[in-house]
Amino acid sequence: MNSNLSNVEIPPIDYFNHLLDNSPNKNKKISFGHGIPKYTPNEYANINYQLLNHSNSFKYTDIRGNIELRNYLAHSLSSKLNFNVKPDKNLIITPGANSAMFKSLFLLLNKNDEVLVISPAYFNYIMAIKMIGANPIEIDSDPEAGFQLNIKSIANSITSKTKAIIINSPNNPTGALYKNNDLIELFKICDSNNVKIILDITYHDYIHANNESDYLSLFSNFKNIIITGSFSKTFGITGLRLGYIATNSKSIDDLCKIQDTISICASSLSQQFLLNLLNYEQLAIETNLNAVKSSKETLISNLKNIPQLNWIQTDGAFYAFIELKYNMDSWKFAESLINSKSVLVLPGLIFGSKWKSYIRLAYGALNSNDVDEGMKRIKSFIDETT
Amino acid sequence: MNSNLSNVEIPPIDYFNHLLDNSPNKNKKISFGHGIPKYTPNEYANINYQLLNHSNSFKYTDIRGNIELRNYLAHSLSSKLNFNVKPDKNLIITPGANSAMFKSLFLLLNKNDEVLVISPAYFNYIMAIKMIGANPIEIDSDPEAGFQLNIKSIANSITSKTKAIIINSPNNPTGALYKNNDLIELFKICDSNNVKIILDITYHDYIHANNESDYLSLFSNFKNIIITGSFSKTFGITGLRLGYIATNSKSIDDLCKIQDTISICASSLSQQFLLNLLNYEQLAIETNLNAVKSSKETLISNLKNIPQLNWIQTDGAFYAFIELKYNMDSWKFAESLINSKSVLVLPGLIFGSKWKSYIRLAYGALNSNDVDEGMKRIKSFIDETT
Repeated sequence: MNSNLSNVEIPPIDYFNHLLDNSPNKNKKISFGHGIPKYTPNEYANINYQLLNHSNSFKYTDIRGNIELRNYLAHSLSSKLNFNVKPDKNLIITPGANSAMFKSLFLLLNKNDEVLVISPAYFNYIMAIKMIGANPIEIDSDPEAGFQLNIKSIANSITSKTKAIIINSPNNPTGALYKNNDLIELFKICDSNNVKIILDITYHDYIHANNESDYLSLFSNFKNIIITGSFSKTFGITGLRLGYIATNSKSIDDLCKIQDTISICASSLSQQFLLNLLNYEQLAIETNLNAVKSSKETLISNLKNIPQLNWIQTDGAFYAFIELKYNMDSWKFAESLINSKSVLVLPGLIFGSKWKSYIRLAYGALNSNDVDEGMKRIKSFIDETT
Repeated sequence: MNSNLSNVEIPPIDYFNHLLDNSPNKNKKISFGHGIPKYTPNEYANINYQLLNHSNSFKYTDIRGNIELRNYLAHSLSSKLNFNVKPDKNLIITPGANSAMFKSLFLLLNKNDEVLVISPAYFNYIMAIKMIGANPIEIDSDPEAGFQLNIKSIANSITSKTKAIIINSPNNPTGALYKNNDLIELFKICDSNNVKIILDITYHDYIHANNESDYLSLFSNFKNIIITGSFSKTFGITGLRLGYIATNSKSIDDLCKIQDTISICASSLSQQFLLNLLNYEQLAIETNLNAVKSSKETLISNLKNIPQLNWIQTDGAFYAFIELKYNMDSWKFAESLINSKSVLVLPGLIFGSKWKSYIRLAYGALNSNDVDEGMKRIKSFIDETT
């Protein structure tokens, strides 16, 4: 067996979902677990499902994905980045953003290479790096500064083995939106050390407040940058498994080998469905973002009444990474909360070994009422166990 | 960059498709290239697309796939294998059969391990093994015997590094259906040498003639067997990217780590669509199989008039692996045929270095008329260049 796998944790959301689905009051379950937006396409778009009766729905697409979808994406990215993205040279539509990240790491890494990861980090980054036989080097972000980048730590952690750094802004699990000045400094450091930046922009459409220009405009070429992204969160279609990679044409050629071997292409039916949603993009973003903001307000007003939960508010995505000021480690907290209240939160430990006293709440999947009910149960659990 | 990638060929179908799409008479193109069945679901099923307006269509499924789909598959496999397959323990729905094969190989292999592959072989097997850093060991099948297994060669090729053998019956690219006695002997050899069998049953529903019992009934447990399969060919839904892995529960647990990291799950929309087709399975198989048989007859009657093409007929899938008795290597033949006649056939070289004088024709994607027209153009090309 692949010896790398023994170091890889079991899929954590799957583990906690199964606990929740078997909890005593499973019919009343409330999940702050999965990072999915509440809205599905039916809630912002008028969908004619008969449009899926199309010859392109059932046959393989090009390895790189449906060309209409790539044309749209190329135009959209070109309007944000400081250069032109070509649909036939710079893009691959992947079966989800996880697939985009795995394939990007698989492209770059050899055994024992190192990848810098900002901690706390999305667990699938760590799993992917370990699986490939490389080593994730966790660089702590700064909780007091709202989990912003620690540029000095990053610079000091680069060795001859460092091949890449993963940057995710807004961030999962913290919701942090990185400052432009920090990113500019980071690019310089990476460029002079020949370290590739894998920039995961999955939550780019979920920025609640921003006084700066869009950070994507800081990029002027694909030389050392691989962008990975997702259609899942923007359109509320997590299950359709549609993401993408945008990078230079040489890397795209090599990624085509990987995509053909692992996937051939993303689901043609999913791609055909997404084509019918593209006209609704602005409406989807507004609908989803407004829902997220409303859920966030409910979360914040509840947190005021729970002194044991300390959240330094962040400005993006739909995650709150909250410190438990409380005499119980967060793994035990999460398991007990499921058993006692059928409420799922994820323990910080799955985002990095340092974060034992934190929990992640994904509030994007819930409407305000459910956030309210979930938080009241959490308060009652804490009151009962303090 | 991943040093394994430089040894991996570029995706061959993609390469030849682009040649065909840019050929002088591209509007009249006929492709024997892609291994896809001609029929799409609309041609055998009465589909209510509105059924896709379902909450399960848009959100992540379980890592292992939709439970209704797994229940169906478990029942179907249990009726063919000589033991019971459990939907919650033995199955993962993957985004296509390529994904199933890659993940199975990724589970089993470490760097420099060896995998036995029956040559000629589906090129993505070779690409996957090389990509992971292991070595494909090509064992020639016997052209004179209709590309049957050479059991002695297999036994003699096993070393301490051999971790697995890939068996694909009916076979891509030859169409060979392996003999039960050979398979029984193979199982014994693999068992005593602790070599895993990855059994790719993608074309199991495309058996044109068979005097023996279904070979799947030879299997009585999952101890040393990983089965990979596809819904693509049976239902004519290659683009939906739906395949599966069936194996023991310990391996499934490890495969869940890989599936979560690379894919999270197969497309929920694709899975929901397939659920609506399951009642049509027998009709789909009959429709597709009849179409394939009819195209095959047209192929055979045309081959009678082309002495330079020598096919020893095989009994499964929808591929003919044909010897070119002719003064042109098959790569040049394929490229010239595209330029001259806008007809695509694949050169044998992409299925193994020994097969320079062979071509593969995928006749399943074409109706009889197109097979006839394609073969007439091939004859005319040969006549003009002899």
